[in-house]
Amino acid sequence: MRVITLTTDFGTADGYVGVMKGVMLSIAPGVRLVDLSHEVPPQDVRRAAFVLYTAVPFFPPDTVHLAVVDPGVGTDRRAIAVQVPQGFLVGPDNGLFTYVLAEAEEWRAVELRDPAYRLPQVSGTFHGRDIFAPAAAHLARGVPMERLGPPVPDPVLLPLPRLEVREDRLEGEVLYIDRFGNVVTSIGRLRWAGNGLVLDAAFRRAAPPLRLAAAGAVVKVGGRTIQGVRRTYGEVAVGESLALVGSTGFLEIAVRQGDAARTLGVRPGDPITLHLR
Amino acid sequence: MRVITLTTDFGTADGYVGVMKGVMLSIAPGVRLVDLSHEVPPQDVRRAAFVLYTAVPFFPPDTVHLAVVDPGVGTDRRAIAVQVPQGFLVGPDNGLFTYVLAEAEEWRAVELRDPAYRLPQVSGTFHGRDIFAPAAAHLARGVPMERLGPPVPDPVLLPLPRLEVREDRLEGEVLYIDRFGNVVTSIGRLRWAGNGLVLDAAFRRAAPPLRLAAAGAVVKVGGRTIQGVRRTYGEVAVGESLALVGSTGFLEIAVRQGDAARTLGVRPGDPITLHLR
Amino acid sequence: MRVITLTTDFGTADGYVGVMKGVMLSIAPGVRLVDLSHEVPPQDVRRAAFVLYTAVPFFPPDTVHLAVVDPGVGTDRRAIAVQVPQGFLVGPDNGLFTYVLAEAEEWRAVELRDPAYRLPQVSGTFHGRDIFAPAAAHLARGVPMERLGPPVPDPVLLPLPRLEVREDRLEGEVLYIDRFGNVVTSIGRLRWAGNGLVLDAAFRRAAPPLRLAAAGAVVKVGGRTIQGVRRTYGEVAVGESLALVGSTGFLEIAVRQGDAARTLGVRPGDPITLHLR
Repeated sequence: MRVITLTTDFGTADGYVGVMKGVMLSIAPGVRLVDLSHEVPPQDVRRAAFVLYTAVPFFPPDTVHLAVVDPGVGTDRRAIAVQVPQGFLVGPDNGLFTYVLAEAEEWRAVELRDPAYRLPQVSGTFHGRDIFAPAAAHLARGVPMERLGPPVPDPVLLPLPRLEVREDRLEGEVLYIDRFGNVVTSIGRLRWAGNGLVLDAAFRRAAPPLRLAAAGAVVKVGGRTIQGVRRTYGEVAVGESLALVGSTGFLEIAVRQGDAARTLGVRPGDPITLHLR
Repeated sequence: MRVITLTTDFGTADGYVGVMKGVMLSIAPGVRLVDLSHEVPPQDVRRAAFVLYTAVPFFPPDTVHLAVVDPGVGTDRRAIAVQVPQGFLVGPDNGLFTYVLAEAEEWRAVELRDPAYRLPQVSGTFHGRDIFAPAAAHLARGVPMERLGPPVPDPVLLPLPRLEVREDRLEGEVLYIDRFGNVVTSIGRLRWAGNGLVLDAAFRRAAPPLRLAAAGAVVKVGGRTIQGVRRTYGEVAVGESLALVGSTGFLEIAVRQGDAARTLGVRPGDPITLHLR
Repeated sequence: MRVITLTTDFGTADGYVGVMKGVMLSIAPGVRLVDLSHEVPPQDVRRAAFVLYTAVPFFPPDTVHLAVVDPGVGTDRRAIAVQVPQGFLVGPDNGLFTYVLAEAEEWRAVELRDPAYRLPQVSGTFHGRDIFAPAAAHLARGVPMERLGPPVPDPVLLPLPRLEVREDRLEGEVLYIDRFGNVVTSIGRLRWAGNGLVLDAAFRRAAPPLRLAAAGAVVKVGGRTIQGVRRTYGEVAVGESLALVGSTGFLEIAVRQGDAARTLGVRPGDPITLHLR
């Protein structure tokens, strides 16, 4: 009874997601279906890539992660499946799996070409239903991935988010803003060691583990300066800004019981600096 | 382990949908629950009918489709269950099943009258919880439909969407606008045959199969003219309008990576013409 | 195969809910997951408490209700699990379970302290993933609640909504406004007995069962007067205001096929009076 997760930009109003679930339950009746997000902004591949990245480590082994954010449907972009140590990824070959692949110790990918693992009729506009959902369901019922099509040695990868380690500072960018307005940055992964922080550069990038004093750090973002890196929201007053290590290990800017993105006026891609002094 | 799908205008903020699921899992603990949409605009029976129509063919046999868009709750409108070749439909008798029934080769319906298949207390306002969810769950655990109540020979049917076949053109209407702004029309079902299209009138309406040249076709909608019917979005530039055969087989107007409904200023019910020449 | 329900203010865009589900399926692979609501307004504990209250009675015995609306994450607020006759409640100790506990004949609670029933790493910001989801999953697979931590004799309880029984009237407040704009009030629980209503004060409050004539009642709310208490929407014309007994047994103000909260301009906490004759 394997798990399939779904991540799309389809929204939940139109029944498109439900149709994909019907297809999957027809092929793999015992599969467990879990929605990660269907509110990815239309065609925002990078945002979907981050949602997948934060979720994959927390699912059972052999989970199949189906992701359909597909601005290129109806072009010659490939449809792929990828096996990583934690499970499988299925979707268009447009960079959706960039962050997961950047941390995977090994992976192999195939192109979804064998018609035996598609619906009999493939439309020009809804490959989520006709190609990706069937592939995910066949993987979930144990079909070896190699049967789905020929190897893909070079899946599309997006540029990784900026992280530069200088002598006295870390330079990064705003990576993601969540529903609460919390600002997730590319400065990570950070972990606590005593009263200090250790940086192990995310996405297996080469960088020496770096120790820094949390109390002395200064964050500059959106024209503002924030003193110190905190452990929890509770260390500042309601309405006050703070920097802390977010739940995925990245430096996060928040306002306690408030909306940091709005307060600071920042958006994905904006620069952020952590001065180590 | 049968499947029950849910389609409502309840939204997902209030817990109403969750309560119906609790009722169903209490009656049929092994049932699989799949949301089609809970974002049907309040009391928009026709839109819910189309969501059901697009989804029903993709679910396993004997799936129960529960739909509660019920402006008449608390009037004397009937509560019904319908058996079609693909499974069961459960909901208020107000036209919700019009499109599915129009394509069903056969069907039979009953009124949900037997109190043994309702909750012990039936409220005046939440028949989704008290009547429809229990009926769906009992059907999913295999109770013969006839036990739920007396036959209904004449369920309410809405007028079918307009489709007129003239010598040189097809006249239809805008049927549905999805989250992306794609404009689904009543002109269908169309299927590709070589470089041309074949029309088999949807909803089992009498019309000769009609062949037309995709390249020569001209679509008029919302004061605009669109040349040709395409196979995929990829055939036009980003931001350009196109006509194509949508995933359910109806003529669809889209803007590549854009919002056609907004671009064209059209709404459900607006006229559309496909000139064949 | 127990059921776990989820109620949060996380929204469904960010994948936080999906991550919690991944954690739970990793611990309890056979568990059934049901969303109650993830659209609780950020940090609106009282609203989440009401969603739980309306849903708990309709789920199978031993269901685990996981609720994470947690403005105090990262302070010293406790994390708790509570056993009530209908099942289990898991979440922060901030009053989320007030309404369910107010009607429970008995309950016992523990603090979630044993690290064996948490994720190995506990973040400072996402206890839903690291503490509450694991606890819910362990309870769902049958771990005795006492193993999770020491007893809590005094979980936080919010003040109950106002209900005052005067000689000639009932005074209450607006408790909840749903997606349709229906106004749920604290005047309840009411039940029909012939042509009259009986009030059994909700939340096990001491008050004599009170009989009142539905037809003669007059409701005053938001500067308006509404005559009589109806059984269903169908008793008034489309667009007209009415008072009726809602699906949870509380007096509810609605506009047939309209939005009562907007029509009346009322909000949670606003006073309402039911004059009895």
